Amino acid sequence: MLRVGIIGASGYAGGELARLLQAHPEVTITFLGSETYAGKPFSKAFPGAAGTALGRLVCEKPEAAQAAENADVLFLAGESGVAMRSAADLLEKRKRVIDISADFRIRDAALYEATYKIPHQAAGLLQSGAAVYGLPELNREKIRCAQLIANPGCFPTATVLGLAPLLKAGLIGTQGIVVDAKSGVSGAGRAKSDLALRYSEANETVVPYGVGGIHRHVPEIEQELSVVAPSSVTITFTPHRVPMTRGLLATCYAPLTRPDLTTTDILEALNTAYADTPFVVVRDAGEQPSTKDVYGSNFCHVAAVVDPRTKTVIVTSVIDNLVKGAAGQAVQNMNLMLGLSETAGLEGGGIWP
Amino acid sequence: MLRVGIIGASGYAGGELARLLQAHPEVTITFLGSETYAGKPFSKAFPGAAGTALGRLVCEKPEAAQAAENADVLFLAGESGVAMRSAADLLEKRKRVIDISADFRIRDAALYEATYKIPHQAAGLLQSGAAVYGLPELNREKIRCAQLIANPGCFPTATVLGLAPLLKAGLIGTQGIVVDAKSGVSGAGRAKSDLALRYSEANETVVPYGVGGIHRHVPEIEQELSVVAPSSVTITFTPHRVPMTRGLLATCYAPLTRPDLTTTDILEALNTAYADTPFVVVRDAGEQPSTKDVYGSNFCHVAAVVDPRTKTVIVTSVIDNLVKGAAGQAVQNMNLMLGLSETAGLEGGGIWP
Amino acid sequence: MLRVGIIGASGYAGGELARLLQAHPEVTITFLGSETYAGKPFSKAFPGAAGTALGRLVCEKPEAAQAAENADVLFLAGESGVAMRSAADLLEKRKRVIDISADFRIRDAALYEATYKIPHQAAGLLQSGAAVYGLPELNREKIRCAQLIANPGCFPTATVLGLAPLLKAGLIGTQGIVVDAKSGVSGAGRAKSDLALRYSEANETVVPYGVGGIHRHVPEIEQELSVVAPSSVTITFTPHRVPMTRGLLATCYAPLTRPDLTTTDILEALNTAYADTPFVVVRDAGEQPSTKDVYGSNFCHVAAVVDPRTKTVIVTSVIDNLVKGAAGQAVQNMNLMLGLSETAGLEGGGIWP
Amino acid sequence: MLRVGIIGASGYAGGELARLLQAHPEVTITFLGSETYAGKPFSKAFPGAAGTALGRLVCEKPEAAQAAENADVLFLAGESGVAMRSAADLLEKRKRVIDISADFRIRDAALYEATYKIPHQAAGLLQSGAAVYGLPELNREKIRCAQLIANPGCFPTATVLGLAPLLKAGLIGTQGIVVDAKSGVSGAGRAKSDLALRYSEANETVVPYGVGGIHRHVPEIEQELSVVAPSSVTITFTPHRVPMTRGLLATCYAPLTRPDLTTTDILEALNTAYADTPFVVVRDAGEQPSTKDVYGSNFCHVAAVVDPRTKTVIVTSVIDNLVKGAAGQAVQNMNLMLGLSETAGLEGGGIWP
Repeated sequence: MLRVGIIGASGYAGGELARLLQAHPEVTITFLGSETYAGKPFSKAFPGAAGTALGRLVCEKPEAAQAAENADVLFLAGESGVAMRSAADLLEKRKRVIDISADFRIRDAALYEATYKIPHQAAGLLQSGAAVYGLPELNREKIRCAQLIANPGCFPTATVLGLAPLLKAGLIGTQGIVVDAKSGVSGAGRAKSDLALRYSEANETVVPYGVGGIHRHVPEIEQELSVVAPSSVTITFTPHRVPMTRGLLATCYAPLTRPDLTTTDILEALNTAYADTPFVVVRDAGEQPSTKDVYGSNFCHVAAVVDPRTKTVIVTSVIDNLVKGAAGQAVQNMNLMLGLSETAGLEGGGIWP
Repeated sequence: MLRVGIIGASGYAGGELARLLQAHPEVTITFLGSETYAGKPFSKAFPGAAGTALGRLVCEKPEAAQAAENADVLFLAGESGVAMRSAADLLEKRKRVIDISADFRIRDAALYEATYKIPHQAAGLLQSGAAVYGLPELNREKIRCAQLIANPGCFPTATVLGLAPLLKAGLIGTQGIVVDAKSGVSGAGRAKSDLALRYSEANETVVPYGVGGIHRHVPEIEQELSVVAPSSVTITFTPHRVPMTRGLLATCYAPLTRPDLTTTDILEALNTAYADTPFVVVRDAGEQPSTKDVYGSNFCHVAAVVDPRTKTVIVTSVIDNLVKGAAGQAVQNMNLMLGLSETAGLEGGGIWP
Repeated sequence: MLRVGIIGASGYAGGELARLLQAHPEVTITFLGSETYAGKPFSKAFPGAAGTALGRLVCEKPEAAQAAENADVLFLAGESGVAMRSAADLLEKRKRVIDISADFRIRDAALYEATYKIPHQAAGLLQSGAAVYGLPELNREKIRCAQLIANPGCFPTATVLGLAPLLKAGLIGTQGIVVDAKSGVSGAGRAKSDLALRYSEANETVVPYGVGGIHRHVPEIEQELSVVAPSSVTITFTPHRVPMTRGLLATCYAPLTRPDLTTTDILEALNTAYADTPFVVVRDAGEQPSTKDVYGSNFCHVAAVVDPRTKTVIVTSVIDNLVKGAAGQAVQNMNLMLGLSETAGLEGGGIWP
Repeated sequence: MLRVGIIGASGYAGGELARLLQAHPEVTITFLGSETYAGKPFSKAFPGAAGTALGRLVCEKPEAAQAAENADVLFLAGESGVAMRSAADLLEKRKRVIDISADFRIRDAALYEATYKIPHQAAGLLQSGAAVYGLPELNREKIRCAQLIANPGCFPTATVLGLAPLLKAGLIGTQGIVVDAKSGVSGAGRAKSDLALRYSEANETVVPYGVGGIHRHVPEIEQELSVVAPSSVTITFTPHRVPMTRGLLATCYAPLTRPDLTTTDILEALNTAYADTPFVVVRDAGEQPSTKDVYGSNFCHVAAVVDPRTKTVIVTSVIDNLVKGAAGQAVQNMNLMLGLSETAGLEGGGIWP
């Protein structure tokens, strides 16, 4: 059994990681780092773990050195700005590192700093290309050899999985793409206490945020789409918060490169691209995914329809923001890094209803 | 006091009409037609009305002739296909008619039939132009003189209010517009019993529907936008169902006609257009509306932001689908037809939280 | 028009008061006190008010002296502990005062202090009996003559309305009563930022709180029930938080005093008690109220069923916690104090759906 | 690997069974019976299963004979009234049968018929005592030897787990017990299409149902509590529907048999009773469970507080109505019947948030 640790275990992504890793057949959790719950059993952070072996594990101070002594694979699930301070050290100690935060997602340090408004303290690591962008459906082979994974954001995961195959196949243009995304409230994390996130204010309302400004996920999406596209991709992106706990839907509108392209052509391209991937389901023609389809699972469901009137394809892509959009994908990355089955610990489908 | 009647009083739009009309200072409800609740007090259809004068009113069979004897203004709140059968008769009897269904919204009978899959039985009325499209912000003067109002759909109301001033001012192009709309579940009406609309299936999920096909509201939106635009408008439109009862948000993406246009320019155009309208609030720069802002009220909140990277303006527009998107707008139309204050019975803001 | 002011206008009860008073035909709002929004228009606190006259009113520092200069009737809607500091002063200035907080609800200062854990700074006012408990269905005549009203809490309102007539009529015992109450999240107010109140934690869960300890509403309930009962009443009370914004249901279990009492007997007693009250609806035999029945309205719906096996009557009582449970009842009290129609500004039924 | 089959696989309990059994290390699903989805892959009934081996399984007509040919253990997850018709046959074929419906829960056929309003067609099986009531925490040894299990209802599971140890220990009386239960909407099943279960009507409301009448779960609860109590138990029971998908909370009020009993005494009794059970968590003094604590898990959390003023203990007990209240408990029973680890396939804690 491999020893794994989580730094930032009492947040939503960290808690979900613990839930998934506990059920994983090949690893054992040996470190749970949490500032708030240090010294307390994990079940105090997540009462749902009470009565399980996981729930009895005692959280420790989230210090990287301590974590490194106890585990061979480290998941960094803290706020952005934290991972960059410990990653180099952990790598030197020959640990595998999977960073759930944004610190290693954007390969251009200046762009990172402009986006996250903090100086990047591990620009060397960025430049060296040591961090692999952990979207297995695009980067499987690189991930297998990586020691440091930048685990993708939830919005980029859904969007890139929806659009990348079509850009790669030259079926859609690189400009004029609109991505309208809807996320459950857990996407805001567990730490924030804004009035707008409290139940009475967030319930029964849908609200756009970060409109027209450069949402922090835009550089990440454009970077990854541009890798597979014939030329640099630009998108217009608007996230919305909808009144549900989990789930994320990206509705992507892209111009067709040829007016005669049909829904069948698009679905064929998606099916080809995802034929050998275990977690992407391309829905049959005429079907649309709902976020409930992936509630609690590591799957991404993708559908596509061509609107022949406007020569636009509408690609819809759903994930559970905390699983395929965070913790599940991190486990998938771990599996690949360690040479395990890609689906180990992640086989289950969604919970319904 | 003017006598008003509602045919289809036990549906959501009908019930909301009753709630608003009961509080209206200048009218009195004299007819409530409902197949299901005929012979029973209105409070059996809507327990919220128990204890009020409205709740004690007894529903009658929803027959137009009967309604006409009892009321001077008739609201037709049945399914599409019903109003077209009684409208001519009511008009002959010199009644004012406000049709909440879709029967008179699309001026081209063939397009109506293609959209709603039923033959139009009052094509003469359509051709004569007798029916005025009841969006007061665009058609106030025509509405004042109308005898028959086609009350707009909820998606068209939000979309047209968001985009019309910009098309009219030539600030956005007529092609390449994307409208991504999100609606609460009550938009599906009270009669449908589909599995997907039951609580356990509709809760905690967001789902697109009617994607890429021609959603029934597209012809209506394009028709009305084309009236004010320099040339015919085409849109790509995707509605989504989000887990809340009321509320509708249209997020509209439109190409700027000039690359130097700014958020300030757009907001100015919106402010100018709505300077004298009582129910449209243009939000300050930097603000975004949420559907909760208009919960239970007849207001529409509009915001706009230019994305300078993509030369796109993102206009967001929220309404309560049952008020400004149905019953409230119908009352606003009635006020104009009868020469009353446009805001009579509709002054209140939204309920919070 | 009477001039009314609200101190604490940006909380949920304060905001609801503003919404109701703005629509009231006999008063005009002349003071909105809010620490957070002082100097800003009310619509910044409640975006739902944007576009209305109310929304344009500018909030002021919530100082009693300032309020007194501007208004004749003052609603004190701050946290408990605030009203007691200004009430005497306001009364001296011949203002009518309606306190929405708990400061004057418990007539025994020592019990108040034990319950709310703060010293009572206006014990003199308490002892003098100056404060009338503002439950119009029980105390209508006293309220008409009062200058200071202690507006009841939401749990006590629902519970006392459900049980008082049965205690008064001697149909149920004074001991062995169980009250199991369920409240929407807005009952916690707008100011608290506890983790448990954030959307992702409060959604999809029901949770008891304050179990078995003396919930702060127990002394208030027992005090008021004991007034009408043949002897002192003791209850077991458990409040629960359910995932909805508004609404409160009290399910009350009480032992019958005679084994032969039937549902009909109980309903008769309730109907007799509430025959002349405008806001209590006794539901027909076989019906049960839901909190949606009173969403946004000042009504209380009460139902009752006898369980002949256990000689227990189950009384269910629903209110909107922010209307009949706070702001609406305050307006009802104001109406009585000022000699207006008891229902002025409160005629509307509930919003549905 | 043991072969297991589900009759009624497209309902909520059946779908949850499939989800749990698919992840179970010792069994393989060989039969999925569903009238509606016969001939279609399981993923059409539950899109969340798309992409998994389970999702590709094709449903068959829900015929017992067919099921018996394909599986050694049968789960009967149809409506009440169905299992009684096939159980005898399956037992004769030496199959293990776990009935999720109510058909074998009530050992008195006449009481069953009075409760469910249908004649019992396997009264012989009832009288023979062949059916073991499948609550492992009370009946573990009998279940190990059983061939036919009556899987408990969700309300009885939560209630009996909360109260049985206290009755057994003589700490609470057998009369005067009140159980106030709150259930998520999925408790109504997937087949019903009542207006009250549709999203717009069930959202934002809490409603009691079946009040004072004998709810169908009362005989079951009283039967099982009476087994462990010194004398026959009678309860007053009120279920409520709350606006959430899953989860069930029973708040139980019971009279103490001795006035000096404390919370500590009660918790001690509960802890003793559940010391060796893997799925019941007795919460620490001062804590209260929420239904989210057991979302998606097979756990039951129990808390207790003594109200010394009224000599009442308030026991709160939460389960996921579809897991410990149905499918999970059925798997737990299967594990015991087959001599597997009691927790096989059920180790995970709850999902959060």
